[in-house]
Amino acid sequence: MSKSVMNVKSNVKTVLDQLMGRKINNIYLVACGGSSAIMYSAKYILDRESQNITSDLYSSNEFIHRNPQQLGKESLVILCSMSGTTPETAEAAKFAKSKGAFTVALTNEPASPLAQNADLYIKYEWGNGVNAFDTNLSVLYQLVFGVLHMAENNEKFGKLVSSLENLQPVYEKALEQEASNARVFAQSHAKEPVIYTMASGSNYGTAYSFSICILMEMQWIHSHAIHAGEYFHGPFEIIDENVPFIILLGLDETRPLEERALSFSQRFGKKLTVLDAKQYDLDGIDEEVKGYIAPLILNRILRQYAEELAEARNHPLSKRRYMWKVEY
Amino acid sequence: MSKSVMNVKSNVKTVLDQLMGRKINNIYLVACGGSSAIMYSAKYILDRESQNITSDLYSSNEFIHRNPQQLGKESLVILCSMSGTTPETAEAAKFAKSKGAFTVALTNEPASPLAQNADLYIKYEWGNGVNAFDTNLSVLYQLVFGVLHMAENNEKFGKLVSSLENLQPVYEKALEQEASNARVFAQSHAKEPVIYTMASGSNYGTAYSFSICILMEMQWIHSHAIHAGEYFHGPFEIIDENVPFIILLGLDETRPLEERALSFSQRFGKKLTVLDAKQYDLDGIDEEVKGYIAPLILNRILRQYAEELAEARNHPLSKRRYMWKVEY
Repeated sequence: MSKSVMNVKSNVKTVLDQLMGRKINNIYLVACGGSSAIMYSAKYILDRESQNITSDLYSSNEFIHRNPQQLGKESLVILCSMSGTTPETAEAAKFAKSKGAFTVALTNEPASPLAQNADLYIKYEWGNGVNAFDTNLSVLYQLVFGVLHMAENNEKFGKLVSSLENLQPVYEKALEQEASNARVFAQSHAKEPVIYTMASGSNYGTAYSFSICILMEMQWIHSHAIHAGEYFHGPFEIIDENVPFIILLGLDETRPLEERALSFSQRFGKKLTVLDAKQYDLDGIDEEVKGYIAPLILNRILRQYAEELAEARNHPLSKRRYMWKVEY
Repeated sequence: MSKSVMNVKSNVKTVLDQLMGRKINNIYLVACGGSSAIMYSAKYILDRESQNITSDLYSSNEFIHRNPQQLGKESLVILCSMSGTTPETAEAAKFAKSKGAFTVALTNEPASPLAQNADLYIKYEWGNGVNAFDTNLSVLYQLVFGVLHMAENNEKFGKLVSSLENLQPVYEKALEQEASNARVFAQSHAKEPVIYTMASGSNYGTAYSFSICILMEMQWIHSHAIHAGEYFHGPFEIIDENVPFIILLGLDETRPLEERALSFSQRFGKKLTVLDAKQYDLDGIDEEVKGYIAPLILNRILRQYAEELAEARNHPLSKRRYMWKVEY
C-alpha cells in the first residue's frame, strides 16, 4: 500500500501509516455478538469496492477453530470488542499473529487484553453522548476505506470520511423524528413473546444485532434476524397477523430485496414496524456512500427503540441472568 | 486446473473435465433457503482446504444486487435449486455468466430454467429412497473436492469420494438408532411454539436448514439457528427450562464450540435434544474427512425428526399457506 491518507480519526491514521508498504491479500473480520454484527457492513463494502483484497467474517472462536488455510503473512485481521475483554476475540488476535497476520483491534479500552494482544489498536467511543464519528462502525469504516484507498486508490474514501463527519446532526434529527414512533412501538410490543427483524445487504448486521443483543440478550424476547432474500424460501411461512416484524429499508443496492419483503409482509402481517432510511434528512451524507451509511443511522434509531421497549417492559437493558453472572 | 479425476458421479466428472485448463480464482456459492444451507458446509471445506481459491456464499438475490467486484472470468459460480425453478437462482446464473464467470448448476431437473441458464448442470437425486452418494450435499462435495484436487492436488479427494460411497449404510444404521428418539422428540415438542437449533462449523448449515425450512416453513414454529460461538454473546440469555433447543455435535474442528454450548445449555435448560455424530457407527468413513461428512448424517437424521414431528402435530411437511399459493 502506498498512499497516505488524511482526515480520519487520528488513531486510525496512525494505523494506516503503519500499514504503508505492507501487502494485504485478504482481510478477516473477527469479533463476537454485537461487535461481530458491525462487521457485516464492512464485508458488504469490501465485496462491492475491493478489486483485489478478499474478505471473510467469522465469530472469533469459529475463526480460531476453523483455522482458514489462507490466513497468513499477507492477511489483515480486524478484531473488535468494546471492553477488549471478550476472551475469544483476545485469543483470536494472538492466534492470528501466530500465523504471521497483521492484527488491528478496535476497542474502547487501550489497557485491555485485546488491545494488548493485537499489533495495533484503535480506541473508539460509545454511549449516547459521543459523536457519531468516533463510534465503532464509523471507526471501522475509516479503517476499511482507508485500506482500500491506500491499496487500490479507492475514490469514495474522502466522501465516506466527510459523510461520517456530518453524521451526528443526521442522527439527532432522525432520533427526534422517530421519538414518538419508538414509544408507540414500545407500548404495542411490550408483551410480545417473539419479534423478528429483517434486512439485507449492509443492513443485515444491524438487524442481527437488534435480534441477538437487544431482544434475546437484553429483553429475553425470542428473535431471529431474517435475511430479506431468504425470507421467501422458508421463513415467510411464519408470518401472520399475530407475528411482529421489524423491517429495515436501507439505501444500498439490495434495497429491492427489503422492499419486496416489506410488500409481502404488508399483505399477510399486521404487526409491522418499518424503519426506512429514505425518511430521514441525510444532509451532508454523500450520495455515493449513503448506502453504506444507512446501517449506522438505522442502528442508532433502533437503540432508541430498545430504550423505549426496556422502559415499557420494566426490564432494563442492563439486566442479565447469565452474562457476567455465572461461569461459561 | 490440470489433473483429471475419477470415481465421482459420472455427471460430476463431465463437469470437472470441462473445467480442465480453466483458471479459477474464486468460487461463489449461490442458492436460496434449503439449497443455500448446503453451501455452508462447502464454504467450510474451502476455507480449511484451499490454498489459493477464495470463496463466498450468498443468497441468490443478494448475490445479484450486491454484485461483488471480484466476480469475473476467473470465477466459478456453483448454484443449486432442486426444482431448478427458483427464479432468483436461475437469474443469478444468467447474471454470473454476463460477468464472464463459469456457472455450474446442481438440480434435480435438467429441463429447468436454472439448468438451462448455467454453463453446465449436475443432476442430483432426492427423497428418502435414493442413495446418499447421489444427493445434493454429496454431489456438491464431489464437485468442490474435485476442483480442489484438480487445481491444488488436494489429497483428501479420494478419501472423500470413497467415504460418500460408503455413506448409505451409515445413514441406515443411524436412522434405526435414532428412530425411537425421533418419536420421543416429536411427542414432547408437538406443542412448542419456539424451537431453537444450534451448531458451528460445517454443521451450521444443517441447523439453519432445520430452522428455516422445517420449523418455520413446514411447521410454522418460531425458530432461529444460533451459531454455537455467538451463543455466549447474546442469544444464551434466552434459554431457561421452558425453551427447547436442538443442539448438534459434529466431528469437525469446531466441535469444542458445540460442546461448550451444550454444556452451558445443560445447566440452565431442560428441553434439550442432542444429536451427536460421535454416537453413530461411521464404518467406511475416512477419519480425515469425517468432520465434513457429519453434517450429511445429522441432516438425514433431522429429516426423520421432522417427519415424526409433522405426524405428531398433524401438520404435514407439505402444508403451506403462501409458498406456491400466492404471488410473491
